[in-house]
Amino acid sequence: MTVVGTAARVAVQGELGSYSELAAHEYFAGPLTILPCPTFAGLFAAVAQGRADFGMAPVENSLAGSIQPVWDLLAEAPLPIAGEILLRIDHCLIAHPGARLEELRRIYSHPQALAQCQEYLSALKHAEAQEVYDTAGAVKMIKEGGRRDEAAIASAQAAVDHQMAILAENIQTDQRNYTRFLVLSHQPAPPGTGPHKHTLILDLPDTGRGLPAILAAFTGQGCEVLKVELRKRLGRPWEYRCYLEVLAEAEAPALKAACEEACALAPGLRVAGPYAPGQTTIARLHTRG
Amino acid sequence: MTVVGTAARVAVQGELGSYSELAAHEYFAGPLTILPCPTFAGLFAAVAQGRADFGMAPVENSLAGSIQPVWDLLAEAPLPIAGEILLRIDHCLIAHPGARLEELRRIYSHPQALAQCQEYLSALKHAEAQEVYDTAGAVKMIKEGGRRDEAAIASAQAAVDHQMAILAENIQTDQRNYTRFLVLSHQPAPPGTGPHKHTLILDLPDTGRGLPAILAAFTGQGCEVLKVELRKRLGRPWEYRCYLEVLAEAEAPALKAACEEACALAPGLRVAGPYAPGQTTIARLHTRG
Repeated sequence: MTVVGTAARVAVQGELGSYSELAAHEYFAGPLTILPCPTFAGLFAAVAQGRADFGMAPVENSLAGSIQPVWDLLAEAPLPIAGEILLRIDHCLIAHPGARLEELRRIYSHPQALAQCQEYLSALKHAEAQEVYDTAGAVKMIKEGGRRDEAAIASAQAAVDHQMAILAENIQTDQRNYTRFLVLSHQPAPPGTGPHKHTLILDLPDTGRGLPAILAAFTGQGCEVLKVELRKRLGRPWEYRCYLEVLAEAEAPALKAACEEACALAPGLRVAGPYAPGQTTIARLHTRG
Repeated sequence: MTVVGTAARVAVQGELGSYSELAAHEYFAGPLTILPCPTFAGLFAAVAQGRADFGMAPVENSLAGSIQPVWDLLAEAPLPIAGEILLRIDHCLIAHPGARLEELRRIYSHPQALAQCQEYLSALKHAEAQEVYDTAGAVKMIKEGGRRDEAAIASAQAAVDHQMAILAENIQTDQRNYTRFLVLSHQPAPPGTGPHKHTLILDLPDTGRGLPAILAAFTGQGCEVLKVELRKRLGRPWEYRCYLEVLAEAEAPALKAACEEACALAPGLRVAGPYAPGQTTIARLHTRG
């Protein structure tokens, strides 16, 4: 947890009560001003333009995989990475106060959240699932709709924020459901001691052919490669982009040497970081001031 | 080009005149019986159940990247790979005989084809693009619809097959547009001499952490890694699946040793192949017998 002086302004994608906002409150101690953004591109722009001090960007879910638009933005709208946090995802069924389970006919949420609660939903025989693109936004929508037969799947915080009722908690099928968020900033956090994460972004001129030598450059220097992410560069014949997450002491000569070696194979290599490896947390409920 | 004795039965996804069918005619010499399948899963099942001798499965486009359901099926509905071919993709604008460009109001095609022809489409000011999930199927659809103001984007072959008119050829923005197809079979083709491709499928218990050592096992034995493809194993916490395309002599002791080394890191490694590296071809037009 990072303590910030005055109330930091943190950009998140989605409405108040989104999992991104919960991640922000767990990562930073003290009061925050949350800046909700409709899109991930808007989140990156808010930080780049100085309207926010930080951005919380989800990059990966343990069950569903990469959040691809965020990886693309890391390369195309580059910002330093100052930290990361892993948030346990606990989904709640949220409805109007007084509504009963058997009244529900429609349940709104993000497609991933609906998929993650499929076992629970299949037992609600009279209700059908409907996709929307923001979990907390689904809660706001059913509140504004005013229909007692409509419910949403979102965080407990979203229910509190919109004065709605929680009909059921922890309704996800698999409890090993975590989302990893990167903390974007204008500059990397000043590194402490010990190994830090470095996110390296490289363009590969070919379908992965250079990758073994690039990875060997890092392992050969004793740097640990924690993750490899590959994305197609759309519209560029056969070209791919590669993201490596590497664990190494900040400013270590070994990392510098490995990056120089990799640069010879993939010119234009860029480093976002260093940042301290994140902890796994469970979100606490916040009351709004 | 492989010569087959009697008319081989080849399963493809999509209608007659699809790019998959063109790839089949370029890969095999001699008469073919084409078995159109509505889905990629149906294509794999047709080969597995012996209703088809071969399947032509697109795995990658030079501009748009991986065809992800096919990679998943390679692991989940495994079939040997007997060959591959790279087909140059030439899109045509296809309409009813006698229809004129300025009459068109709606143009149907696969989302990728529409995106690849965006520059051409933006000049047709009165026509709007509509997505359907099969290029040749779009031609069949507008023919059955009978409206002179509807057109489709597909191969020249699809126009010939459905007795429709070609209003414009080569309308893709970028001419470096190729799709790579794998030839699925009951067994790998008997290898000839020289280096062959081997597609290796491995499950990674972690987010890419084991990948550098696995790649080093192959490069250390002198095998060339041509491509790396990573896919999330949906619903399995943090687990990924990795596909490697490796160039090595078939039955080479070096490949066997590398596979054994990789198996220690990723148990359950499976090899699909060997198959001869494919050639790039431009489809010829076929008249139906």
